[in-house]
Amino acid sequence: KINGARLWDSLMEMAKIGPGVAGGNNRQTVTDDDAKGRTLFQEWCTAAGCSMGLDQMGNMFARREGTDPDALPVYVGSHLDTQPTGGKYDGVLGVLGGLELIRTLNDLDIKTKHPIVVTNWTNEEGTRFAPAMLASGVFAGMHEQDWAYDRVDADGKRFGDELARIGWKGEEEVGARKMHAFFELHIEQGPILEAEGRDIGVVTHGQGLWWLEVTLTGKDAHTGSTPMNMRVNAGLGMARITELVHTIAMDNQPGAVGAIGQANVYPNSRNVIPGKAVFTIDFRSPDQDKLDAMKARLEAEAPKIAEELGLGIAIEAVGHFDPVTFDDGCVSAVRRAAERLGYSHMDIISGAGHDACWINRVAPTAMIMCPCVDGLSHNEAEDISPEWAAAGADVLFHAVVETAEI
Amino acid sequence: KINGARLWDSLMEMAKIGPGVAGGNNRQTVTDDDAKGRTLFQEWCTAAGCSMGLDQMGNMFARREGTDPDALPVYVGSHLDTQPTGGKYDGVLGVLGGLELIRTLNDLDIKTKHPIVVTNWTNEEGTRFAPAMLASGVFAGMHEQDWAYDRVDADGKRFGDELARIGWKGEEEVGARKMHAFFELHIEQGPILEAEGRDIGVVTHGQGLWWLEVTLTGKDAHTGSTPMNMRVNAGLGMARITELVHTIAMDNQPGAVGAIGQANVYPNSRNVIPGKAVFTIDFRSPDQDKLDAMKARLEAEAPKIAEELGLGIAIEAVGHFDPVTFDDGCVSAVRRAAERLGYSHMDIISGAGHDACWINRVAPTAMIMCPCVDGLSHNEAEDISPEWAAAGADVLFHAVVETAEI
Ligand SMILES: NC(=O)NCCC(=O)O
Ligand SMILES: NC(=O)NCCC(=O)O
Repeated sequence: KINGARLWDSLMEMAKIGPGVAGGNNRQTVTDDDAKGRTLFQEWCTAAGCSMGLDQMGNMFARREGTDPDALPVYVGSHLDTQPTGGKYDGVLGVLGGLELIRTLNDLDIKTKHPIVVTNWTNEEGTRFAPAMLASGVFAGMHEQDWAYDRVDADGKRFGDELARIGWKGEEEVGARKMHAFFELHIEQGPILEAEGRDIGVVTHGQGLWWLEVTLTGKDAHTGSTPMNMRVNAGLGMARITELVHTIAMDNQPGAVGAIGQANVYPNSRNVIPGKAVFTIDFRSPDQDKLDAMKARLEAEAPKIAEELGLGIAIEAVGHFDPVTFDDGCVSAVRRAAERLGYSHMDIISGAGHDACWINRVAPTAMIMCPCVDGLSHNEAEDISPEWAAAGADVLFHAVVETAEI
Repeated sequence: KINGARLWDSLMEMAKIGPGVAGGNNRQTVTDDDAKGRTLFQEWCTAAGCSMGLDQMGNMFARREGTDPDALPVYVGSHLDTQPTGGKYDGVLGVLGGLELIRTLNDLDIKTKHPIVVTNWTNEEGTRFAPAMLASGVFAGMHEQDWAYDRVDADGKRFGDELARIGWKGEEEVGARKMHAFFELHIEQGPILEAEGRDIGVVTHGQGLWWLEVTLTGKDAHTGSTPMNMRVNAGLGMARITELVHTIAMDNQPGAVGAIGQANVYPNSRNVIPGKAVFTIDFRSPDQDKLDAMKARLEAEAPKIAEELGLGIAIEAVGHFDPVTFDDGCVSAVRRAAERLGYSHMDIISGAGHDACWINRVAPTAMIMCPCVDGLSHNEAEDISPEWAAAGADVLFHAVVETAEI
């Protein structure tokens, strides 16, 4: 078993970097705080005897050698970046759980045939720069690297420039590494495991996703002196499309979700009818047909709403992945590990996107989930117990050691 | 008649200060650009032989002496501050039209019995610091001065501190001045005069207003992994209240308007269900009963919407004035002036709030309106013709000279 107290200490240590305003974290991707988090992780890995790699997307690779020089490494890991008002565990548990696995192997003096590599994937959250899982997506060949560099944040800063600025743009070609397997430990970010009283979720599938950015164009005008029939109100259009997104999701129950996370009106002044609204829709489902039908319905009905109000509309897909089926062999290794360790477990579908969803396309992949309190995530109040963290890391340890062979 | 070319030149000169991004202006109240605009106005007034006054709210008073030492001054003026994406004429025409009146009196060597004072009222727009017409409101005894100083902008800066910082906080007690009458020239900011083909609007009434700031409190949560039935989505609540505001306004046609100008969700991240929404509602009507009924219906129905979604709700009134009836004598002076000059005119109700609406409570007051293209205002594309501006300033000149007596 891994050392749960040491894992917890490291989680708490990392959470001191980029503290939030309400007990969580604001350590957004390729910020100065992201750089500090990376430096701390690198120090820990080096102290644990790992050699470090860094690719041109800023993905970090901490490698513990294996005994067979020809064996491909088993990869583990997740991400250290957080939401602007995020929790201490989303992503971090998977990276530091990987580090704990290395430390435990060292403690027990276990040598594996396959090398083991702990990864920190850059910009998993996708808040500052859409889409999410940007760097693992480039690694898996889903995005062009130059396209990824050109993503801009709300201040117009380029991802590539910011990565260079914080000093974590490496030399290594992205995606050149070959993997024997990839395992990602992550908190569930949903309520199912806690409700069912299970220690471990054996992740068999992941939901697919469409992120659509909608721009409505109306006419800025005075809220007082413009008669109702002369208004071209982009804010009203946004309201109606918000309701449409909700209706589409509800009409596809069970097994679908939809909401608008980002919503901005312009010029955002008390006495100006909004002449422009920009907002992002997030549709998800584990069912490919439902997922695509939700997008198609939005694309059919939102323009009608815009037309009725006299608004211009542009809909751009800014993030997408198909539903994911994880590798049978890796999933079985996770299930066996949970059983061997006596943890209660259940098969589960990941509601969130994860780096594992992209890596699954280039290597046999599986995920391990642990519960989180009230299913709450992307919230500074996100919480897990030290026991849940330790159970997840234990299962990661056993699944990886089995796969990496002693 | 006034010198229309000189008036237009001054308007264009002032528009160079705090330029917008699309041909208009961003010269928001008590910013550095506001200070520059004030300095230019003061230079012009001093050159025209006026003495300058400045009160503790930053209201500026440029005085041309009269022949009777006991006669109260006739006041004119409006405001030099603009919306963040505002036009070149909203407010500015009334101030510089007043300056042009002084310049014309000088040209023609006309002495009036009553002194004439041109005023620039601070923070008319109310965008940066709600409510609108803040300083004329303090002048008219509607707000406490300390309360006004404590208004904060989106960055948490206090109005009083910012006024001092830009160097335009005076010594003079606010509201101490007594007025013989007050006349405000302003662009219509609505479509009626242009549609009716009239040069001049004789403003008989002003709409009343309620500004309500609504805060909805839900729960930040992951857009992907949170099941639909566990969401407490403040963005969805904002959408439904946006629709409610529209319905309430439509149900009160004709003679009522309603919209949401400012709308913010938090944390405003693509993959976070908004846990908070803050937005401002603007209801107006010239009919007191309708105005209050709209507010009452919102206060009755919005909490039901919130409750259905499990959201907390707080509704705060952040701006209010009752419908205004302007002074018969002053209104007649405006109508007579338009007739004497041969300008086509009609009676009109002001859709927007104006400093004149507050000053009307402490002095006989009237307003003169000129058309604006497409009724567009609070938009950088706001436009008027030099002829419209000159006609408005001519009527101001004649109404004021009649009232100030030669
Ligand atoms: N795990 C996680 O929250 N990833 C961010 C991408 C997503 O929104 O699913
Ligand atoms: N005239 C004008 O736009 N004033 C601002 C206050 C209002 O919104 O009516």
